Amino acid sequence: MMQIHFDPKKGIWAEDDETYEKLRKNYFGTKEKGGRIRLEVEEALYLITFQNASCWLRKKQIGFNELASYFAKKDKRLFIKYNAYRDWRDRGLVVKPIDLVEIKKKRKIRGKRYPAENLKTKKLRVKIYWYPDSLFSVLEDESLGKKLFNDYWFGQFGIYKQERGALLKLNFLETIFLAKHFGVRVVNVENGKEMKPSQILGQVTKEREYTKSLYGVYEDWRLEGYVVKTGFKFGSHFRIYFPGASPAKEEKWIHSKHVLHVFPKEQKLLISEWARAVRVAHGVKKTFLLSVPELKKKDYVDYPSDFITYRRKKVGGNWIRETLEDKARYLLVAVSEDEHIGGIELASILAKAESMGLNVLLSITDRETSITYYVLNKIKLPGSRYEYYEIEWMKP
Amino acid sequence: MMQIHFDPKKGIWAEDDETYEKLRKNYFGTKEKGGRIRLEVEEALYLITFQNASCWLRKKQIGFNELASYFAKKDKRLFIKYNAYRDWRDRGLVVKPIDLVEIKKKRKIRGKRYPAENLKTKKLRVKIYWYPDSLFSVLEDESLGKKLFNDYWFGQFGIYKQERGALLKLNFLETIFLAKHFGVRVVNVENGKEMKPSQILGQVTKEREYTKSLYGVYEDWRLEGYVVKTGFKFGSHFRIYFPGASPAKEEKWIHSKHVLHVFPKEQKLLISEWARAVRVAHGVKKTFLLSVPELKKKDYVDYPSDFITYRRKKVGGNWIRETLEDKARYLLVAVSEDEHIGGIELASILAKAESMGLNVLLSITDRETSITYYVLNKIKLPGSRYEYYEIEWMKP
Repeated sequence: MMQIHFDPKKGIWAEDDETYEKLRKNYFGTKEKGGRIRLEVEEALYLITFQNASCWLRKKQIGFNELASYFAKKDKRLFIKYNAYRDWRDRGLVVKPIDLVEIKKKRKIRGKRYPAENLKTKKLRVKIYWYPDSLFSVLEDESLGKKLFNDYWFGQFGIYKQERGALLKLNFLETIFLAKHFGVRVVNVENGKEMKPSQILGQVTKEREYTKSLYGVYEDWRLEGYVVKTGFKFGSHFRIYFPGASPAKEEKWIHSKHVLHVFPKEQKLLISEWARAVRVAHGVKKTFLLSVPELKKKDYVDYPSDFITYRRKKVGGNWIRETLEDKARYLLVAVSEDEHIGGIELASILAKAESMGLNVLLSITDRETSITYYVLNKIKLPGSRYEYYEIEWMKP
Repeated sequence: MMQIHFDPKKGIWAEDDETYEKLRKNYFGTKEKGGRIRLEVEEALYLITFQNASCWLRKKQIGFNELASYFAKKDKRLFIKYNAYRDWRDRGLVVKPIDLVEIKKKRKIRGKRYPAENLKTKKLRVKIYWYPDSLFSVLEDESLGKKLFNDYWFGQFGIYKQERGALLKLNFLETIFLAKHFGVRVVNVENGKEMKPSQILGQVTKEREYTKSLYGVYEDWRLEGYVVKTGFKFGSHFRIYFPGASPAKEEKWIHSKHVLHVFPKEQKLLISEWARAVRVAHGVKKTFLLSVPELKKKDYVDYPSDFITYRRKKVGGNWIRETLEDKARYLLVAVSEDEHIGGIELASILAKAESMGLNVLLSITDRETSITYYVLNKIKLPGSRYEYYEIEWMKP
């Protein structure tokens, strides 16, 4: 049976030959001079719980809670970190606390490149009428409405997927965009006065938080030639179509393959709320894109990232686990369903991982200690002002 | 061609025989003395847009925006209301502004009854260790842990759906519940001090908003014999199992059929965020239950409810539309993707609808003017302190 030792002043270690050998073979702990292996608390808790190791404080055997109690004050997220560690180890894979890994060979994180095509704008001499509390505007000019809908897929001409009705209905993002980039004049239907794009943005922002972030992302993709429509039916802010899409182009209705969600840098979300948006996208088999707009260098913070993890590689037709000798893959961040994350925190983790040549692996412990994994990959949208990430659900 | 007339002082009406006859047959407008039909603005806008009606302000023909501009100031939600009206009419169904319907024959709204079975509690002389920042506690007593898991399905014994590990991990709701109703002693692992259930609730509330609402609902269903586990994988706060469920009872793993979401009365949510939770539940074919806990009589407000709607009925093997002569079905509330709703507002609408013998029909206009419908039905959980509703996605 494996034996491990604990002393509040010296930490946790193993020294007998049998234990030493077992730990070494399975990439637990760090070798020290003098034939000892030093263990991290997560490793020790795992060995006690799943490898039948006995843990000794001098001559007294101690259990999970007693050992953990020595570390819980200093390491407040201990249980969540332990649970993330446990799950990865349980899959037969290697995971190490971040401080103990020296990354010699970095992977190059190459973001997937999305196509871009400058939007061709023109001046339109037309008035549209803005319904300020409903956040829609209406264009009555039938031929222009049809053109804006068919050529650019702005607004909704007539009824959705039908050929009836002659009004072009534009939402607040489209209204602001057309005013700003196409010179469309926007008249407030309540008082007959014209409104500038910035005035509309300001008015909507009063009623709907984070409108500026939403518009910033809308504009960014529109200017790169993408069609950006509501993602309401898919639980996200937007669904997007690649440059060149039009509702009238093909015989068949085109289906979007991507949804785009905006996570404002000031917003704090429960992990469960954040994951819900990703979940809907997966349920309908769309790629989930995340944006944290308007980030500045000074925004970045040092968010705790917990482990470096390895996966499996194919050698001679067999899948074998990667070890510390391989290039590290993921920066694992252990969080729980009931804690918060902000746009800035997420972006900071992503920046840190990139500098280390790693992808971000979010490990979410639910209230039943079951874990869900998401991998975050940076993408490149040439000409864009912001950073975007694809988020994939991952089963190790 | 239909002709309608508008005068800022007199309102909107139709008077020629042909128009009168068409409107009467299709349940548009209200008959007035002197052979006129008075029209609501939503009706007039619909007739202009989809029935080719011409609208006259004295000798000048006016369009959608000009007519709407006379009403938009007084009726700020005009466009969203019009859009809800348009969609229902477009399906060949009858819809009337709420003020114009006199409900003579009320339907009786009988809530579905859920089974209940008082939970049998007992005193347990045991200590569990609370990890305050991770929001979990751990019970090391293996036989008691197994029993609490198998008999009550409290916590997670060992690994989810596996037979390994000997610890019972309890989340914060279970920890508080066991301390309160089973006399379990909870020791803070950081300082060795015992904590009362109210202290744990207070501590968690500081880190996670609305914990009190969450716990209230958890306790309510647990005391009625239900098993209440996290709904994380289904995008909701809880999944529930009917009284008698246990993880060990059957050979096969039991699947929950209901998810339960808590909408705290003080919380304001974007309609899109609210709908996202309902959407995930539908995607995985679960019944979505909503709770607005801790409501008091004085909380209720007068939230605008817009229309009364009718559906179809079967007469002699055919489906024909219901009219004002039939019992009204729904209180329609027109909202948009980008506006907010609070727990109190939702509960207030539900109470108003019930008093009128109607179900609530939420009509959500997305940013493309497409509409999604949800029907809210009250359910009865005998012995419960709170009100619960089933929410169904509806296609008229």
